[in-house]
Amino acid sequence: MPHAEAVPEGSKITICEVGPRDGFQNEKVFIPTARKIEVVNALFAAGLRHIQVTSFVSPRAVPQLADAKEVLAGIDRPEGAWVSALVPNLRGAERAAEAGVDAVHTVVSASETHNRKNVNRPVDQSLSEFEAVFETLHKAGVVIEGGIATAFGCPFEGDVPAQQVARIARRYQDLGAGSVALGDTTGMATPLTVRAAIHAIRDAAPGLDIHLHFHNTRGVGLACVMTGLAEGVTHYDASVGGLGGCPFAAGATGNICTEDLVYLLQESGFETGVDLDRMIAAASLTQEIVGRPLPGQVLKAGPRLKRHDPEMTVTAAG
Amino acid sequence: MPHAEAVPEGSKITICEVGPRDGFQNEKVFIPTARKIEVVNALFAAGLRHIQVTSFVSPRAVPQLADAKEVLAGIDRPEGAWVSALVPNLRGAERAAEAGVDAVHTVVSASETHNRKNVNRPVDQSLSEFEAVFETLHKAGVVIEGGIATAFGCPFEGDVPAQQVARIARRYQDLGAGSVALGDTTGMATPLTVRAAIHAIRDAAPGLDIHLHFHNTRGVGLACVMTGLAEGVTHYDASVGGLGGCPFAAGATGNICTEDLVYLLQESGFETGVDLDRMIAAASLTQEIVGRPLPGQVLKAGPRLKRHDPEMTVTAAG
Repeated sequence: MPHAEAVPEGSKITICEVGPRDGFQNEKVFIPTARKIEVVNALFAAGLRHIQVTSFVSPRAVPQLADAKEVLAGIDRPEGAWVSALVPNLRGAERAAEAGVDAVHTVVSASETHNRKNVNRPVDQSLSEFEAVFETLHKAGVVIEGGIATAFGCPFEGDVPAQQVARIARRYQDLGAGSVALGDTTGMATPLTVRAAIHAIRDAAPGLDIHLHFHNTRGVGLACVMTGLAEGVTHYDASVGGLGGCPFAAGATGNICTEDLVYLLQESGFETGVDLDRMIAAASLTQEIVGRPLPGQVLKAGPRLKRHDPEMTVTAAG
Repeated sequence: MPHAEAVPEGSKITICEVGPRDGFQNEKVFIPTARKIEVVNALFAAGLRHIQVTSFVSPRAVPQLADAKEVLAGIDRPEGAWVSALVPNLRGAERAAEAGVDAVHTVVSASETHNRKNVNRPVDQSLSEFEAVFETLHKAGVVIEGGIATAFGCPFEGDVPAQQVARIARRYQDLGAGSVALGDTTGMATPLTVRAAIHAIRDAAPGLDIHLHFHNTRGVGLACVMTGLAEGVTHYDASVGGLGGCPFAAGATGNICTEDLVYLLQESGFETGVDLDRMIAAASLTQEIVGRPLPGQVLKAGPRLKRHDPEMTVTAAG
């Protein structure tokens, strides 16, 4: 498979922070609305400009995000901010538009089994129902990012053919989405599957921007970002502190960690617009709020040039 | 900076397992010799053929590895096995050669401060003393891998110029080393520093194979492997289960994890010769022996195509 043009060094990479949505939704204890707002504002203060703030889903299904409207009303929106929300259906789209989001992330799974379990309908029914969703959002002037869950594999079906992902991407393009976000829902993305999905989508739906949403469940999330960069992709989702466990595997982590991604990109010669120290501060705040250690590594170790105590001894390092 | 030729897909990548040395040396509680042997044998059974089994250092400095000779005498050595040990000085080299290792890993730091703290002498004195070390090892028919610690940055001095690393590599080449191992002692390697070091060494010492030894302290260890692969490097150190904490930062991890690396390489189209399931079994055994959770992610989440319970419910995944 030939490589595409890599993202040139010095380029701006867009990071979309999804912790307030993909992270908080997995927390069992309700996080007070004011504290959610505090986290989002700390993320904006760190320089992030794309934040997926919440979901407009059934409060019965996800009680944690029942305060979607209140959180959106309470946050700062600095210049250039893109505030988005996930919506599963028309009702969610209407509520999101009323709440004044800039963008909406819709969701359908690339695998039938996962889509039935997640939204209780076949894939093609989800896609048909998107017509009314898109119409509503277009009228409201809301930008649409077409989300494809289990894009790199399904924990029930196994491998997901890249053509299946590309077919959904094409539908999204025909519906008028500007971008498609490939969701690595349970951490099955690998360099080969990432490359295959990107190539298949570029063939089938060349008008779409591709956004990549990796989980670090098997430790290779940032390695998959390297593949994305080599393939010319400039937009990545990540979660503050690596917030967002995988509900299926004890101890396994969820989304790739925003401050680790910022660190990697800066130290690879890319621009992110994010201040790493402030990003670490936002992760510390988030960790304090959820009340348990988050998996982010830069949060624990500190920035690269943080010095050790000069009196420290060293033994048998290699 | 131009990219070198990337390693072609389908190539064999060599993984050198360093857990029994770089990992065990950080364990406070003495691990019985028989259990160390059990781990090494499980690693060979998984298909690994390069294992850094121990160090010949002062037993006062590293009591955990005082049984170096006994471990080496007790392990299986399957066909094609390369058994190596770290040695800091002539006495260590003599003991390693007597114990029948195939290869020795010498160590000098790229930064003066770290070398003084680690082996209590200036860098140039270390290099001069290597003359007798190399002579002894050459006579004994032992292969030499020239280790350079703090090759991507020093926790006391900060950035380490690539030229400083290349100068030491050149001395290693002149002494007769076949390869140089760049040690990311405290997890400061990044794509840019990795690329700079590789290019500087190829200019200064084109006869040397380059081996990369990354720590995952800041979460980017496997991303640095991707950079190494893009630059044509085919040899990586890693540690079973990610064994080997960083003694400087609570919760921070040490070496990149062998089974996560095997998973990444296999899923990038490379050959490793390692059976992932057996590798996970070796990591489970190691975890049981050290008696605490290891940071390896594939160990927690399982292989990529491990299926979930078909009855499992899913909520609001994106």
